[in-house]
Amino acid sequence: MRSQSIPCSTPLAGGTDLNPRVRALIDGVRDGFSLDQPFYTDPELFALDLEKVWRRNWIYVCMGCQIPNPGDYITYQLGTDRIIVIRGDDGVVRAMANVCTHRGSIICTEHAGNARALVCPYHAWVYGRDGELRAARMMPADFDRSRHGLAQVRCEMIAGFVFVAFSDHAPDLATWRAEFEPHLAAYQTDRLKVAVSKTYDCNANWKLLAENFRECYHCHSGHPEYIRAIIGSGMHEPREKADAETRRAQDAWKAQGVGNDSVDYDDANGDWHYSARYPFAPGFRTMSEDGARVAPLLGRLPSEDVGTYSIVMYPNLWMDCPPDHLMTMRVTPRAADRCEVRFDWFVRDDAREGVDYDPAKVSWFWTVTGEQDVRLCEDNQAGVASPRYRPGPYAPAEGGPRHVIQWYLRQLVRP
Amino acid sequence: MRSQSIPCSTPLAGGTDLNPRVRALIDGVRDGFSLDQPFYTDPELFALDLEKVWRRNWIYVCMGCQIPNPGDYITYQLGTDRIIVIRGDDGVVRAMANVCTHRGSIICTEHAGNARALVCPYHAWVYGRDGELRAARMMPADFDRSRHGLAQVRCEMIAGFVFVAFSDHAPDLATWRAEFEPHLAAYQTDRLKVAVSKTYDCNANWKLLAENFRECYHCHSGHPEYIRAIIGSGMHEPREKADAETRRAQDAWKAQGVGNDSVDYDDANGDWHYSARYPFAPGFRTMSEDGARVAPLLGRLPSEDVGTYSIVMYPNLWMDCPPDHLMTMRVTPRAADRCEVRFDWFVRDDAREGVDYDPAKVSWFWTVTGEQDVRLCEDNQAGVASPRYRPGPYAPAEGGPRHVIQWYLRQLVRP
Amino acid sequence: MRSQSIPCSTPLAGGTDLNPRVRALIDGVRDGFSLDQPFYTDPELFALDLEKVWRRNWIYVCMGCQIPNPGDYITYQLGTDRIIVIRGDDGVVRAMANVCTHRGSIICTEHAGNARALVCPYHAWVYGRDGELRAARMMPADFDRSRHGLAQVRCEMIAGFVFVAFSDHAPDLATWRAEFEPHLAAYQTDRLKVAVSKTYDCNANWKLLAENFRECYHCHSGHPEYIRAIIGSGMHEPREKADAETRRAQDAWKAQGVGNDSVDYDDANGDWHYSARYPFAPGFRTMSEDGARVAPLLGRLPSEDVGTYSIVMYPNLWMDCPPDHLMTMRVTPRAADRCEVRFDWFVRDDAREGVDYDPAKVSWFWTVTGEQDVRLCEDNQAGVASPRYRPGPYAPAEGGPRHVIQWYLRQLVRP
Ligand code: FES
Ligand code: FES
Ligand code: FES
Repeated sequence: MRSQSIPCSTPLAGGTDLNPRVRALIDGVRDGFSLDQPFYTDPELFALDLEKVWRRNWIYVCMGCQIPNPGDYITYQLGTDRIIVIRGDDGVVRAMANVCTHRGSIICTEHAGNARALVCPYHAWVYGRDGELRAARMMPADFDRSRHGLAQVRCEMIAGFVFVAFSDHAPDLATWRAEFEPHLAAYQTDRLKVAVSKTYDCNANWKLLAENFRECYHCHSGHPEYIRAIIGSGMHEPREKADAETRRAQDAWKAQGVGNDSVDYDDANGDWHYSARYPFAPGFRTMSEDGARVAPLLGRLPSEDVGTYSIVMYPNLWMDCPPDHLMTMRVTPRAADRCEVRFDWFVRDDAREGVDYDPAKVSWFWTVTGEQDVRLCEDNQAGVASPRYRPGPYAPAEGGPRHVIQWYLRQLVRP
Repeated sequence: MRSQSIPCSTPLAGGTDLNPRVRALIDGVRDGFSLDQPFYTDPELFALDLEKVWRRNWIYVCMGCQIPNPGDYITYQLGTDRIIVIRGDDGVVRAMANVCTHRGSIICTEHAGNARALVCPYHAWVYGRDGELRAARMMPADFDRSRHGLAQVRCEMIAGFVFVAFSDHAPDLATWRAEFEPHLAAYQTDRLKVAVSKTYDCNANWKLLAENFRECYHCHSGHPEYIRAIIGSGMHEPREKADAETRRAQDAWKAQGVGNDSVDYDDANGDWHYSARYPFAPGFRTMSEDGARVAPLLGRLPSEDVGTYSIVMYPNLWMDCPPDHLMTMRVTPRAADRCEVRFDWFVRDDAREGVDYDPAKVSWFWTVTGEQDVRLCEDNQAGVASPRYRPGPYAPAEGGPRHVIQWYLRQLVRP
Repeated sequence: MRSQSIPCSTPLAGGTDLNPRVRALIDGVRDGFSLDQPFYTDPELFALDLEKVWRRNWIYVCMGCQIPNPGDYITYQLGTDRIIVIRGDDGVVRAMANVCTHRGSIICTEHAGNARALVCPYHAWVYGRDGELRAARMMPADFDRSRHGLAQVRCEMIAGFVFVAFSDHAPDLATWRAEFEPHLAAYQTDRLKVAVSKTYDCNANWKLLAENFRECYHCHSGHPEYIRAIIGSGMHEPREKADAETRRAQDAWKAQGVGNDSVDYDDANGDWHYSARYPFAPGFRTMSEDGARVAPLLGRLPSEDVGTYSIVMYPNLWMDCPPDHLMTMRVTPRAADRCEVRFDWFVRDDAREGVDYDPAKVSWFWTVTGEQDVRLCEDNQAGVASPRYRPGPYAPAEGGPRHVIQWYLRQLVRP
C-alpha cells in the first residue's frame, strides 16, 4: 500500500472521439488534485471507463490453481459481458463467451464448477471445453457447426495468475511476465490452493478504490492493524529510522538471493503495474493478528525472512504475498457508484486445513484491513457525490493516487 | 407447447412514425434468426412494446369465475396503468380506471375483494359498481357528477375468459369467439373455481417467454416431466410413431364429438391465437405427477379420453386444459428485463378441496414445468444482454418462435 | 390540518430560464385543479423542484434542544447534498458541508452524535466545531489551512427551531420570527427534549404530502381519531355549531393572554408560512387516545386550556403543539415518487420518562394519524402515475392545496 511520489505531467492530447462535455471535464482536471465529481458519479463516464479502461486492459480473473483439472471453470462478468474461464483437455486455460450461439442463453449458470462438456441449459447444444460446437440437435444438414463455436476471449496465464482481455486493444503482457515471473518463482504460485474467499459489495466508484490502494496516508488513522505489521506504513516514526530498517531488510533479502527492487512501470501505452517488497515490523513474520506464521512456508522460499511481496496491476489486481500465504484482491466495477471486491487467500496446495493452517487466521489480516478500506471508500463516495465537493489537493504522501489519476486520464484519451 | 413451422415473410412496410434507430433495428432483423439485443434489453423498445403491442391487443386478466358475485373485483396493472375489473349488479363484468376523478388516488388498494360501492380511500367519493360517480361530498351545487365517472376500459368475456383492451385499437374478438367457444363449451369454463394461484417474478423480457412457450425444442432437455406426459413433445422417438399415436387419439376424439383441429390464426391486423388438442402418453390421463386424475371431470365432457386442449392468445395468455382441471398462465411485462408470470389452476366449482382434489397435486405439473421455463428464460435474458450475443438461427423445430417474431415486428410497424 | 379557501390567481410571468416543455406544463395548469401527472412523477421536474423550491427556501432540520451541548451534531441530506448541523463551543448552532476539503470523504458518518472535533475518517484532517481546518497531517509548509475549512451553510434558529438554507436565495426570516416567536414564547420551545422519533419512507411525491397536510376534506373518512379530537375537523356537524365553539374557545384564550390569530402569510417572494390555534373537542385536553394529558404542561403556559397551536412552514415543516407536548413533522424529498417523513415528539426537558410521561402515549395520536396520511399519499401517488389520471377539481374545502399549488408554481417561475 505504500507508494512513492512520481512526477506527473498532463499534456493530454488525443481523445478527439470524446464528446465535448467529457473532453472539457478531462481538460479541467488539475494535476495534484482529486477528480471532479462526474468522474465518480456519472453513468456516461462510467460507460466510458468500461470501454476505455476496463475493456482495453488485462483483467485479473482468478488463479489457475482455482481450476486445476480439465473441465474446471469459473465464470466472470464485466458490465453485461459474461465469460467462462475453463481448463481444456490439454490443460490450457481458455476464456470464451458465456453466451450460446443458438438463441443466446448463458451456458454456465454457476460461479464455478466442472463440466465434461459445455451444454447449454436451453436446447442442449453441446460445446467442447475449447468452445467448439460439437452437437446441435435436429439442425438441418447444411448447418455449419464450425461457424457456431463460442466466441473466444483473450486469456493469458502468468505465474499462475489468469488474465483476460475483453478487446484486442490490451497491451502486450511481455513486460509484466519478464518482471514478475522471476520474483514469483520461489513462491510457486502455480502450486497453491484457496483457503478462504470473501466478496464485498462496495458502494463506491472503482477509482476511489484504485486511489485508496495506492497510498498509505490513510493508514495511520484507518489501519491500526496494518501499521503495526509493516515498517514505515504509519508514517509516524522518523523517516530515517524506517529507511534504515528497510535497508537492513533489503540486505538480508539480497544475501538470500531474493529480489527486492520496487518496480513502478507505466508506459505510454497504458500498461501499468507495480511491485515492491516490504519488510515486516519486529515481531511480525507474516500478515496475521499476532505476527506469527499462519501456514507453511510457500514454495521453495529460502527462509521466512523475505518480507511481503506486493503487486498492483491496474485496473483490478492487488496482491500481497507474505512468506506463508498469498492474498489477491480483485475489483470489478458494477456501476458508477458501486463495485465488487473479492478477496482470495491461498496457501500451498499440500497444506492441510485444520492441521497446517486455520482459515480464520489466514484471512484475519486482510479481512480487517480490507473491510476498513471498503468502508472508507464508501464514505468517500458519499462525499464526492455532494454538490459541495470540490477536488482537493493530494498530500505529498499521495503520489500514488496522483499517478493513478494521470494514468486513468491517459486511458480515456488514447486512440 | 408444440408448434409447427409456418412460412414467414418480412415485407415490413409501415412504421413511418418510428424513430430511425428503431426502424433500422426492425429492418436489420433476419427472418429465421432471433432478435437483436435491443429488442430484449432497451427501455425505449420496451416502451414501444407497451404502446404498440400490449395496449393495442386484448389482454387476458382473469376468469369470470374468479369474480362470481356482484361487487367482486380484481385489480390489474400494465405499466403504470391500473384498472379494476368488477362484476356489476347486473352480473356484467366491466373494467374501469382504478383512478379517482377527484385528485387521482387509486380506489381499490387490494388485489381482489368485494365492494358494495367503489369508495375512494382519500375523500370518500363514491362510485357505483358500474363506475358512475354517485356521491361527492361537499362539492358545489353546479358540480356535474355525470362527467366524473371512472374512465371505462374495453372488456370482453369469452367462454369465461375476461379480456381487456387498454386502447381502441384492439382487433375484433369475433374470430376468437367463433373458433374457441365451441371447443370450450363441453368444459363449462364458466363453472370453475380457483384451486391454486402462483405468481413469479421472472427476470426476462416478455418476448423470451413468448418464444419459449411456442416451441418444444427445449422440452427434451428442459422438461423431463412434460415429455413423459405428452406424446411426441420430446422429439426423441420416431416422428412416424408419434404421428400415428396422435392420429389414433384424434379418431377417438372424433368418435366422441370432441373437436380436435389445431388452429393457428394470424391475420394482417395483428390478431393472433392458437389452439390444439394433444394426446397424452400411455398411462397419462391428465397433467399430473403419476398421470392419474387429480380432480373430477370438467363440465359435461363425454369421457376423460380427450387429451389436453391448449390455447395461446398473444401477447399474454397460455392455457392448458386436461380433462379434470384448467391452467392459465398470464404474463405481464414489468420492464425490458422483467415480467410477472401468474399461474392459476381451476377445477369444477362443485369440487371439494381435500375430498375431490388436492391443490398440491392439481398444481404439481405446471409448477414444475413453469418454474423450469422461468429459469430458462432468465438464463436466456442474461445471455442476450451480453455484448457477445448475436442473433442465432432457429432450428426447423422452432417455427413457433420464428412466427412470434414475425407477428411482433408487424405489430411495431402497423399504423 | 384545517384550512380556509384563499383567492388565487395565476398570472405566472417569469420562468424564462425554464425549458419549453416545463414552461408549457406550467402554463397548462388550471387554477382549482390538481397538477398534471409530470409534476408528480417526472425526474426532470423533481430536479427542478430541488433547485427552485428546496434549495431556495428555509428547510427545517431539527430543534436546537436535540443538540444541546457543544459538539452535539446531527447530519441531514437533501438530494446528494449532505450537511452537519453542530453546536459550537460558543453555543451557536452552525451548519456546514459534511464533505472533507481534502479528497471529499464525508466526515460525520452517523445520524447524530457528539464530536470533540470534526475528524475526517479517511486521512484524519481535523476541523473545529466551527468548520475551520485545524490540522492536516504532513501537508507542505505552504499549505494554507485557512482556505480549506468546511463550506458554511446558512443556518438560523427561531424559537428553538433550526432551519438551514442550501443557497443564498432563501428569503429573509424576519417575518417568520416576528410572527411566531410571540406565540411560541409561553411554550419555551428551547427547553424541550425528544420523547419519541419515528421515520417513514413514503412512496409519494412531496407535493402530495404538501397538499394532504393543508386540507381536512379527507379527515372525515381518513382520520377518525383526529376528528374526534379537533372541533370542526370532520366537517360533518353544522358549521355554525363549530364556529360558535371556536369563538367560545378563542374568548377563553384571549382572557388568558394567549394569541389566537390564524396567520396565512404568502408573499410574492415565495415565503410561505401558516399558523393557527385550534380548540379541542369536549373531553379532549391534548392529542391523545383518550383526550387526557400525556405529559406535564409545557413552559409557562397559563393553563391547559389553550387548544393546539399549529405551524406550517413550506416546504417541509408541520408542527402541532397541544399544551403538553410538541410534534414536528419533517418532510425530505428523495425522488419524484418518494420522500422521507420524520416525526419527533418533544416534552419539557425536566419531564421524567416512565414517571411524568409514557412515550407510547405521547406519540399515539400522530403515529395513528401520520401513518394514515402516509398511506393515503402513497395511494394518491399510485393513481396520479396512471395514464388515466386527469387533474381533478378541488372541492371548496380544499383551498389549502389549491393555495399550495399556486405557491409552488410561483416558486418555479421566479428569477
Ligand atoms: S439457446 Fe443454447 S441451445 Fe438454444
Ligand atoms: S382523490 Fe378520491 S375522493 Fe379525493
Ligand atoms: S478525505 Fe478527509 S482527510 Fe482525506
